[in-house]
Amino acid sequence: MTGFGARLTAAKLSRGPLCLGIDPHPELLRAWDLPTTVEGLAAFCDICVEAFAGFAVVKPQVAFFEAYGSAGFVVLEGTIAALRSAGVLVLADAKRGDIGTTMAAYATAWAGDSPLAADAVTASPYLGFGSLRPLLETAAAHDRGVFVVAASSNPEGATVQRATFDERTVAQLVVDQAAVVNRSANPNEPGYVGVVVGATVFQAPDVSALGGPVLVPGVGVQGGRPEALAGLGGAAPGQLLPAVAREVLRAGPNVVDLRAAGERMLDAVAYLSVL
Amino acid sequence: MTGFGARLTAAKLSRGPLCLGIDPHPELLRAWDLPTTVEGLAAFCDICVEAFAGFAVVKPQVAFFEAYGSAGFVVLEGTIAALRSAGVLVLADAKRGDIGTTMAAYATAWAGDSPLAADAVTASPYLGFGSLRPLLETAAAHDRGVFVVAASSNPEGATVQRATFDERTVAQLVVDQAAVVNRSANPNEPGYVGVVVGATVFQAPDVSALGGPVLVPGVGVQGGRPEALAGLGGAAPGQLLPAVAREVLRAGPNVVDLRAAGERMLDAVAYLSVL
Repeated sequence: MTGFGARLTAAKLSRGPLCLGIDPHPELLRAWDLPTTVEGLAAFCDICVEAFAGFAVVKPQVAFFEAYGSAGFVVLEGTIAALRSAGVLVLADAKRGDIGTTMAAYATAWAGDSPLAADAVTASPYLGFGSLRPLLETAAAHDRGVFVVAASSNPEGATVQRATFDERTVAQLVVDQAAVVNRSANPNEPGYVGVVVGATVFQAPDVSALGGPVLVPGVGVQGGRPEALAGLGGAAPGQLLPAVAREVLRAGPNVVDLRAAGERMLDAVAYLSVL
Repeated sequence: MTGFGARLTAAKLSRGPLCLGIDPHPELLRAWDLPTTVEGLAAFCDICVEAFAGFAVVKPQVAFFEAYGSAGFVVLEGTIAALRSAGVLVLADAKRGDIGTTMAAYATAWAGDSPLAADAVTASPYLGFGSLRPLLETAAAHDRGVFVVAASSNPEGATVQRATFDERTVAQLVVDQAAVVNRSANPNEPGYVGVVVGATVFQAPDVSALGGPVLVPGVGVQGGRPEALAGLGGAAPGQLLPAVAREVLRAGPNVVDLRAAGERMLDAVAYLSVL
């Protein structure tokens, strides 16, 4: 199997540089005339899987499944499996973070052998980037990827992410530590450790030396303009992976309309091609 | 129903100031002669429920259930329900954190109406303390509690938690923002927003004005000495809630031995009475 960085690059080349979110928010379920139950959740995901099967990356937001307890996780497992068998790279947006053996258990869940394991997972570094090591190691061993949250678009994020340690912001430190891991991995292929930088973040960290992908959520209704992403944080065009959810999902529940909305968004970000 | 702060105080008065962790690590399952499968996980939890039914607070570590996917969450739901019906306060150690409607979905899961909802949940503030608002509001509406991670014992945590913003450390800011929420809630009862401060943290934030409980994990084999906890971060004795997992769990699988180990640890921290 090939490392995640190379798999992501190949997927973007053949299917385009876009990550489509599956965010089954109760309001969206209602807008799609679905009940806000686990059956409604499953129906929502079935539609998304059918509409998104031709795209490069799909990102289920774990929280919207977790809200239904174990029954929601059954739906998530089925959704991940269906997307992966359609050749889609699945990025589980879980933002997990802990230390030691607890972090290792999360690694088993999302990057190891559990039925939740996806092609990549998001992680949260409040306990220090170094605390994520068990996840990074498990991901590397299974050719999966990890996207570590660096900077978010919400204003409250600044009190943590723009705090400074040894004259660098916390967000920059996260990027720099991820870069070290990517450099020490196979230098002949794109890194498997990415970061998350919100589309409308006030001051993006410098990602030019990251050597890995930058997931950019918040494109569309959340305020990020697709045409304004180029060069975010000094990124090379092919480094960015814009993510859109609500803006596309509100075109559903018709599969054809939903797919068309995804394709329109892909056209809008296609200039961020992998050159 | 009574607010979480008052419920916690009452539980500590009648059952003692100790939080027992359920950390079903694969190594512990093997030590208890249980298979490292979801059936082994369920058997492990059944033993813990029986042994810990008389204690004040029990903290299942969600990661060790999540490692088994949806089937693990079925076991977690059963464990939470069994503990609560035994009168134990259940603190789900989930360390969730996100923004906006995603945070609201985690709030539904752990502090709302889902089968996972416990008496309290831990949260991670990398996206800013303010991003946790939907969780705090849901918890308050349901008389549940939230413990926000402030400072952890692992050395890597310093690059985030000891970074500074407006001349305060990130860890101190978390405590101060939690204090604001507690002050603006019912001033006649103990606050429902607690913080997490590792037992062996290098420099604990000042929690004297928090007006809420301080969960102190890492007591026992992780290096925190029970007799050395008094005054951590300037806490009043009754403010601290020491948490122990491995040190007690390794006394299993015999229920009587396990309970006795919990009681020995309770004796060791009993001086941290609510007075």
